[in-house]
Amino acid sequence: MWRLHQFPICPFSRKVRLLMGEKGIAYSLQSEFPWELRDEFLYMNPTGRTPVLVHEEKNITLCDSMAICEYLDETVDSAKMINGSAEYRAEIRRLVSWFDEQFYGDVTAPLLHERMRKRLVSRESPNAGVLREAMRLANGHLDYMDYLIDHRNWMAGAKMSLADLAAAAQLSVADYLGGIDWTGHAQTKAWYSMFKSRPSFRPLLSERMKAIAPPAHYDQVDF
Amino acid sequence: MWRLHQFPICPFSRKVRLLMGEKGIAYSLQSEFPWELRDEFLYMNPTGRTPVLVHEEKNITLCDSMAICEYLDETVDSAKMINGSAEYRAEIRRLVSWFDEQFYGDVTAPLLHERMRKRLVSRESPNAGVLREAMRLANGHLDYMDYLIDHRNWMAGAKMSLADLAAAAQLSVADYLGGIDWTGHAQTKAWYSMFKSRPSFRPLLSERMKAIAPPAHYDQVDF
Ligand SMILES: N[C@@H](CCC(=O)N[C@@H](CS)C(=O)NCC(=O)O)C(=O)O
Ligand SMILES: N[C@@H](CCC(=O)N[C@@H](CS)C(=O)NCC(=O)O)C(=O)O
Repeated sequence: MWRLHQFPICPFSRKVRLLMGEKGIAYSLQSEFPWELRDEFLYMNPTGRTPVLVHEEKNITLCDSMAICEYLDETVDSAKMINGSAEYRAEIRRLVSWFDEQFYGDVTAPLLHERMRKRLVSRESPNAGVLREAMRLANGHLDYMDYLIDHRNWMAGAKMSLADLAAAAQLSVADYLGGIDWTGHAQTKAWYSMFKSRPSFRPLLSERMKAIAPPAHYDQVDF
Repeated sequence: MWRLHQFPICPFSRKVRLLMGEKGIAYSLQSEFPWELRDEFLYMNPTGRTPVLVHEEKNITLCDSMAICEYLDETVDSAKMINGSAEYRAEIRRLVSWFDEQFYGDVTAPLLHERMRKRLVSRESPNAGVLREAMRLANGHLDYMDYLIDHRNWMAGAKMSLADLAAAAQLSVADYLGGIDWTGHAQTKAWYSMFKSRPSFRPLLSERMKAIAPPAHYDQVDF
């Protein structure tokens, strides 16, 4: 069986878990906190980053969330999430990269640094200016998502795809860390509310990161 | 015909150009300096980043170098570069991400910032400490590349792949900016020397970035 090395609020691990949930792939979880720099983990993945997906019986170790998602989509036929014409696939991948790099860099990464790493690792208090800037940029990202959903049924177009899973993964971690103000983003809110009720998402929303509590609305479908 | 928006020492554009060169895809170049924040460019790619690949007649705009490479590899059959078993493809993608994120973040990005952006944009002088640290990390990356080439014919395994193109793209920009000390890296040096003589690479090596000169060995196959 597959084993995923991750921690509860790693957005890249969440993207992989949403994909495995949609596809109905069974897996177990292994807690991995990258900042502990475990030798065995660095040996598995020289970047020292989560997620890593391992299949012991088949002797397979997969690193990098996009490489993992492409692998799973190529090898498991159910619920294809990088699918359609070559142009549609390019749009899916552009948006996955948008959420993994731009949203993550602008919003999720600073929130994780200020609200998780400082709390658990360096025991400093968060920098209010950095948090404010991340929330300001989050608002711009929500505008862009509103715009996409206004023009399409799903993030990349007519069908649900890995772009939606990548967006939900980043957004859910930012929301867990109190970085999202939903006011004025009805489109994205409706899309996200629908997403929250999917069976692939429920188990993620019920997990907690030790010592860090999410806001009350976090796991509610009506928020 | 395809038109690539790029600048001569953008490593992600180089990866795309190497792929188009290997596949024999014709294209023209459009100079694009992301720091100029051209409205038309931001409209094409909301991240404001190079490369962007455009086909006007077919009304196609592709953003993000990995989305572009996957598209080209899916639609053009010659010289497939993300090929082989699902596991081999996962290894190719893991390594592309390694070079695009780790090598770029540790080495190419700080070199570009200190030696290009400061020169052309903010007109400051480079920070010697940052340059030293980037060169120190480059040495560790070359060790990893030596190790890969010691155990395999090419970066990802038995066959040349996009991982080799991604590696050559990052390495060539770092070398242009004087960030690579080749001493003690015979394996990577031999691999790179062979790469430098490929027809797909020659045009890149003869281009120059305005006001920034590469070291004398930069475009020589024997160095
Ligand atoms: N491109 C990688 C990024 C993974 C990543 O950045 N993971 C974070 C956790 S959310 C990490 O492990 N950071 C620790 C570090 O960079 O040292 C992927 O998609 O898997
Ligand atoms: N993931 C993107 C990264 C592209 C990228 O970072 N391009 C740099 C030039 S080497 C850029 O445009 N930077 C300007 C900016 O980030 O504002 C890709 O692979 O295309």
